[in-house]
Amino acid sequence: MKIVDVVVTPIAFRDPPLLNATGVHEPLALRCVVQLHLDDGTIGLGESPGGRAETDRLIAAAEAVRGLDVFATNAARQAVHDALRPTVPRIEDRDGAWAPLEVACLDAQGRLMERPVCDLLGGPVRDSVPFSGYLFYKWSEHPALDGRPAIADEWGEVLDPDGVVAQARRMIELYGFRSLKLKGGVRPPDEEVAAVRALHDAFPQLPLRIDPNAAWTVETSRHVAREVEGFLAYLEDPTGGIAGMGEVARATAVPLATNMVVSNLEHIRPALEHSAVQVLLLDHHLWGGLRRSRGLALFCEALSIGVSMHSNSHLGISLAAMTHLAASVPHLTYACDTHYPWNAPDDVVRSGALRFVDGSVPVPTGPGLGVELDHEVLDRLHRVYLASGRDRRDDTGYMRRIDPAYDPALPRW
Amino acid sequence: MKIVDVVVTPIAFRDPPLLNATGVHEPLALRCVVQLHLDDGTIGLGESPGGRAETDRLIAAAEAVRGLDVFATNAARQAVHDALRPTVPRIEDRDGAWAPLEVACLDAQGRLMERPVCDLLGGPVRDSVPFSGYLFYKWSEHPALDGRPAIADEWGEVLDPDGVVAQARRMIELYGFRSLKLKGGVRPPDEEVAAVRALHDAFPQLPLRIDPNAAWTVETSRHVAREVEGFLAYLEDPTGGIAGMGEVARATAVPLATNMVVSNLEHIRPALEHSAVQVLLLDHHLWGGLRRSRGLALFCEALSIGVSMHSNSHLGISLAAMTHLAASVPHLTYACDTHYPWNAPDDVVRSGALRFVDGSVPVPTGPGLGVELDHEVLDRLHRVYLASGRDRRDDTGYMRRIDPAYDPALPRW
Repeated sequence: MKIVDVVVTPIAFRDPPLLNATGVHEPLALRCVVQLHLDDGTIGLGESPGGRAETDRLIAAAEAVRGLDVFATNAARQAVHDALRPTVPRIEDRDGAWAPLEVACLDAQGRLMERPVCDLLGGPVRDSVPFSGYLFYKWSEHPALDGRPAIADEWGEVLDPDGVVAQARRMIELYGFRSLKLKGGVRPPDEEVAAVRALHDAFPQLPLRIDPNAAWTVETSRHVAREVEGFLAYLEDPTGGIAGMGEVARATAVPLATNMVVSNLEHIRPALEHSAVQVLLLDHHLWGGLRRSRGLALFCEALSIGVSMHSNSHLGISLAAMTHLAASVPHLTYACDTHYPWNAPDDVVRSGALRFVDGSVPVPTGPGLGVELDHEVLDRLHRVYLASGRDRRDDTGYMRRIDPAYDPALPRW
Repeated sequence: MKIVDVVVTPIAFRDPPLLNATGVHEPLALRCVVQLHLDDGTIGLGESPGGRAETDRLIAAAEAVRGLDVFATNAARQAVHDALRPTVPRIEDRDGAWAPLEVACLDAQGRLMERPVCDLLGGPVRDSVPFSGYLFYKWSEHPALDGRPAIADEWGEVLDPDGVVAQARRMIELYGFRSLKLKGGVRPPDEEVAAVRALHDAFPQLPLRIDPNAAWTVETSRHVAREVEGFLAYLEDPTGGIAGMGEVARATAVPLATNMVVSNLEHIRPALEHSAVQVLLLDHHLWGGLRRSRGLALFCEALSIGVSMHSNSHLGISLAAMTHLAASVPHLTYACDTHYPWNAPDDVVRSGALRFVDGSVPVPTGPGLGVELDHEVLDRLHRVYLASGRDRRDDTGYMRRIDPAYDPALPRW
């Protein structure tokens, strides 16, 4: 069954003004949707981070898989790497271009065989996948800019511990999350410690984590680790670099998690040598697809490294893929991350297949990923992308337009 | 698609008097054949090491998977481990009981979907899989014993370098092998060094390896390593234990390979800490099936550890499974081992699907494993098993019946 065409559609969808260590989410998040066509008419779906560079790489990768058998994903990945290697030096970027194609191949395989994607990964070990409520410091609105009026959202401003707890409460009411993650690196570290402490006081049963995206020095990270030891499930990327993470790890019993310092196979050996990572966040978008991510989880099992899952702003195709992957991983030791609640209103998949029940997403049972594309929404989001003139994610540039004094240099504290 | 029945058939087949570090192969090798029946009549095949304990574990494992979906292999493995854990403490033994069931599930899945098993592992990255010619010191015959007459074979006696070279020459003529492995641990180390040196002189283009199965001390291993440095591709399990392997590794540039000191996930961390292993031999029979073995190969890729494949005496179901696995592993850095040429005359699969071309086995293209069971042969080999009264492999016991002074203690030199 041959791949005869791959349609790559760059899209843009609404995103609230969520704050992080490098700035603030822009009003539109960028993403690509892949429709992979087989010679019998079967179509497989994939989703990836967007922007001009990402779209161009994905189109080049798509060109490399045209004509290949949809089951030949090992060879197709090699073809993509071979095609991109001369111009795309980073492994993550090449695997990032391949990943949505692998997902689309598996979706198409599943449709052909009338089996869910999860079954192509050895089948589910759980019927639903636990996700954590992803909490953000945020503004009440995207400020008026360039003649565009302000864009408010229903979640309001969150800049202090009370706001974080209120956001968590609402997230839990809406989705039933049974663990919580705070995106940190925004407020001074002691304020963020106060916020996770307030979360712990409000929800003493829920596992908590904080992710400042390497905004802290080793010394600050050690200080925070001392403050949160005993009630934080893990501390994610407190500081930058494998050596720095290792220094922090040696000073605390709080497990350190990462999606930043270990993002391709070459990072694994130094991470082990520095004992820098106790929890690895899978991300099939970064690691070249679902099957390689499963292999990575086995690796973590071998080394008694915990496993969670990373998320960027994403829509339902990615959520379905993440759910099928996580359902198939026996050694999933923490709830997965997802931005989905922040972006679901603009989802490109037809509603019905994906929902949260007690903070978990039941594994879609339909063939393939189990989701269907809403072509009207896809067309609309593609037009939004074209009209936006945007070509890359730029949280820092956006922040600086509003606060020209903003300094994105890290570590900040 | 449910598993409704699993038929486990213990068999015994002819084996030449091949010598190794713990004795000599008996006239009959023991193996199990699995026929896994689905509710629609589809049957999947698997093969595993045999003997009473192995058969009993496999029957218990089969009981644990009955009623499960054939695609739910992750959950089925867990069910097998749960069922066996109370009475089977070794991970390898539990995964060894599960492995032929996983292969049978994948064979059945492939038949259902009319795709080769390789495609369930991401598809082939090579059309045929290179194997090495597996050379053995051997007797000319199984001596007369217990009123049974002597059993000669066409390969004759091999006890010195000339014999090893002659055996290699014949292996290459028959099968076209482009690399060679000598089972060592039989003759004094300097004689074995002379044998691999003679091989190198006779076949200077062919990668060579020797496997004494931990028959040597660290000191002897270092001595041998010095002798073979520069012309041996790798040295397999020269000495026992991870620490000992690490000591040898530090003294030589010859890569050390193993299937002995790293045989389950728990061995990986200490092996890394001791830098004890530069080449890992995959064995799906030991590591819980084809998908976990692929994950292990990814792990090796991550750590720049070479990958080859281990073999015990086996028949065509295992050869097909090994070939599908190896075809799907991009990071296969050496030709695989196989005993198949020694045992092929008693194969339980119908001839035609498996053949060697220039030392490589073309990946079977039929659905599933691509091999069919020869029920007449299976019945015959099962009767041979029953009549043999044998319940376990005992190379040492057999050797001692012929040479009562034989001391199997290792290291021997």
